[in-house]
Amino acid sequence: MRAVDVIRSKRDGADLSAEAIRAFVGGATDGTWPDYQLSSLLMAIVLRGLSREETVVLTDAMVRSGDRLDLSEFGGTPVDKHSTGGVGDKLSLVIAPLVASCGGIVPMMSGRGLGHTGGTLDKLEAIPGFRTNLTLSEMRAVLRRTGCVLIGQTREIAPADRILYALRDVTGTVESIPLICASILSKKIAEGIGALVLDVKVGRGAFMKTEADARQLASWLVEIARKNGVRTEAFLTPMSVPLGRAVGNANEVLESIETLKGQGPNDVEALSVRLAARMLVLAGIEAVDDAAERRVRHAMASGAGLEKFRAIIEAQGGDPRVIDDASRLPQPTIRETFPAAADGVITGMDAELVGRAAVALGAGRDRVDGRVDPAAGLMILAPVGTRVRRGDAVLELACGDANRMAGARALLAEAVRIGDRAPDPFPLVIDRV
Amino acid sequence: MRAVDVIRSKRDGADLSAEAIRAFVGGATDGTWPDYQLSSLLMAIVLRGLSREETVVLTDAMVRSGDRLDLSEFGGTPVDKHSTGGVGDKLSLVIAPLVASCGGIVPMMSGRGLGHTGGTLDKLEAIPGFRTNLTLSEMRAVLRRTGCVLIGQTREIAPADRILYALRDVTGTVESIPLICASILSKKIAEGIGALVLDVKVGRGAFMKTEADARQLASWLVEIARKNGVRTEAFLTPMSVPLGRAVGNANEVLESIETLKGQGPNDVEALSVRLAARMLVLAGIEAVDDAAERRVRHAMASGAGLEKFRAIIEAQGGDPRVIDDASRLPQPTIRETFPAAADGVITGMDAELVGRAAVALGAGRDRVDGRVDPAAGLMILAPVGTRVRRGDAVLELACGDANRMAGARALLAEAVRIGDRAPDPFPLVIDRV
Repeated sequence: MRAVDVIRSKRDGADLSAEAIRAFVGGATDGTWPDYQLSSLLMAIVLRGLSREETVVLTDAMVRSGDRLDLSEFGGTPVDKHSTGGVGDKLSLVIAPLVASCGGIVPMMSGRGLGHTGGTLDKLEAIPGFRTNLTLSEMRAVLRRTGCVLIGQTREIAPADRILYALRDVTGTVESIPLICASILSKKIAEGIGALVLDVKVGRGAFMKTEADARQLASWLVEIARKNGVRTEAFLTPMSVPLGRAVGNANEVLESIETLKGQGPNDVEALSVRLAARMLVLAGIEAVDDAAERRVRHAMASGAGLEKFRAIIEAQGGDPRVIDDASRLPQPTIRETFPAAADGVITGMDAELVGRAAVALGAGRDRVDGRVDPAAGLMILAPVGTRVRRGDAVLELACGDANRMAGARALLAEAVRIGDRAPDPFPLVIDRV
Repeated sequence: MRAVDVIRSKRDGADLSAEAIRAFVGGATDGTWPDYQLSSLLMAIVLRGLSREETVVLTDAMVRSGDRLDLSEFGGTPVDKHSTGGVGDKLSLVIAPLVASCGGIVPMMSGRGLGHTGGTLDKLEAIPGFRTNLTLSEMRAVLRRTGCVLIGQTREIAPADRILYALRDVTGTVESIPLICASILSKKIAEGIGALVLDVKVGRGAFMKTEADARQLASWLVEIARKNGVRTEAFLTPMSVPLGRAVGNANEVLESIETLKGQGPNDVEALSVRLAARMLVLAGIEAVDDAAERRVRHAMASGAGLEKFRAIIEAQGGDPRVIDDASRLPQPTIRETFPAAADGVITGMDAELVGRAAVALGAGRDRVDGRVDPAAGLMILAPVGTRVRRGDAVLELACGDANRMAGARALLAEAVRIGDRAPDPFPLVIDRV
């Protein structure tokens, strides 16, 4: 099947045959389709779309481009959580140990931050010594020891996705619900899970800006994952302001540890409990939400979740003393406050701009191969709803390079809104799909 | 200006700024935009379109990617003809010598056949010794000597078009009126002409299958060429059956020579006279069509056109004896007839399928780097309207490899239609734009 015929067919709005989709994914994986043909087809897909049936085949072909892990040795139903990406979203660091401490098997493969959003791998690597690039046999060893492992995509997992994702990033072909679906799910299905909770973020700080888009993405993700034998649910959650108080890497690790100690911000704690409980239900560990939530809260109150996180850090080569001694996390050389520009109430804190300010401070990357300063980031001292006087500290900025402050301040001047009246609080969850 | 931002902008349906279009063409020319970004933008352009204003800027940027020839030394208004491509379309070989023999300056740069359509360069190269790849100074020398030159696109002319065209061919991005416009006109404008007659083919054997598409292409071509200071008109002409009797290369050269001798097929002669006359008017050599047509017919009857062709062949290194001795053209080793499958009247001879049959015989190429057999091709013995009996010869096939016959026969079995009643004849010209 000639590449140019497949491209022309999608360009003209036809549905691609399974054979055509497999030729595309195979060509991407083995290099027989040159990049310029891949990117031409990707753009045709962005503009012409893929049907659900085509997306099911695409996902399957991407899973088959590598290995699909067999985790049956662990018994039960391995379960994972995936977020479509937000600002201050450190939930994975809280949820994975909690679920594992309740008996779940959690083989979690995460990504790095890109654009204005943070990434779980960057956060974990703020822990001195923590290794995220394990081999498959190291991964199994950690999973055997702790019931949980927190790593990046290995070479064996969905190599077609790795190749296509890198190309999409530089060819303007990221924004496509079918391509996003196939990318997320091919990795998750290949990692060998039987249950999955999706956290689809909606709002200014998310990739899906509207509830309609997020709802469509969520429904496709759920349907396609289920067709691949993974028990799946999606939560639509708001991402208009950052989640929690910390945006960065080392400071988000610290906030995760505080949450596991029962001392985290309300929104982080509440959403973590909600998602973790649902993971226990989908994995068949608890039958109903109420019992599952009680069990998760008990794991938090008893310190079982915290001890599980300590064990995971240790098993993956990290320094477990960060659990009790925050000074062992990377420290910024410069800390400055960002003041309120007027008297009033904080009425908004635009998540995308705050995320971009954190990137400007060094906490994220603008390019795939960029480096991250683990100590850089910001803390929200006066969250939305707080009454402030002009000059009061709204945020604390941290970085290692004074030149980075000006860019962050300019973005934050736009991000922070001060008005007369506190806005209605955001719901924790918009909907469950 | 980052490539990915330009791509995203067109993907989202925005008009590109002149700066963005120049960045794209510049990036194609100097290689700073990798192929995968070029092809992604090309597909976005195919699906989102370009406005006329964007197409004007694109054409201009492609002209400026190389040299624009200054032919003022020749005086008058250099004039050219361009066909959007058909089957059996040898008009350039007839028209260029005719116009030059009437005092026109004709610096004609042509292309090769691709797909089911023939190319002027391939036809010319069937003449032993004929060189089409002249340098610019050789081109000027031939033009000085004969008033006409028939060559391929030189390296100096619109290099961005050469790069983009090669990429479009393998990425399913050929079919776009704005891209076709910019590709045709950038070469024509850069070759230094002041007047241009376009032959926009419509029908099964043309790239434009519908009159509406052809009309739109014609109107864009005319408007954009005029904006660039080229006096331009377009003819819409039918391409549902092949033009003339010969489809191939050597046999089309022979048919061109016969036409210049006044012994060609009616359709080839009539359309050649019509287009050549209009070239004389646009170049300012004649004031009105009637006088121009008389002058062209006189050049044909007097043999002046034929002698001009002889001079051009000689000036470009070819063997001028082919004019008087057809046996000096390449000869096929195998000739076979294709018989009528039933009694009746030939009611159709699908130009696209006939073109593909000629390619199957070796007269064209399926790949850009493929080779052409100059002696291969076919002759229409019983054109549309002819009454035949089952077994009568409808076509004569010629090639150098018996294995090629079966593929051509299968295509021709589809192409040739026999019915009860002769169809109405096609008009010579559908419209002038």
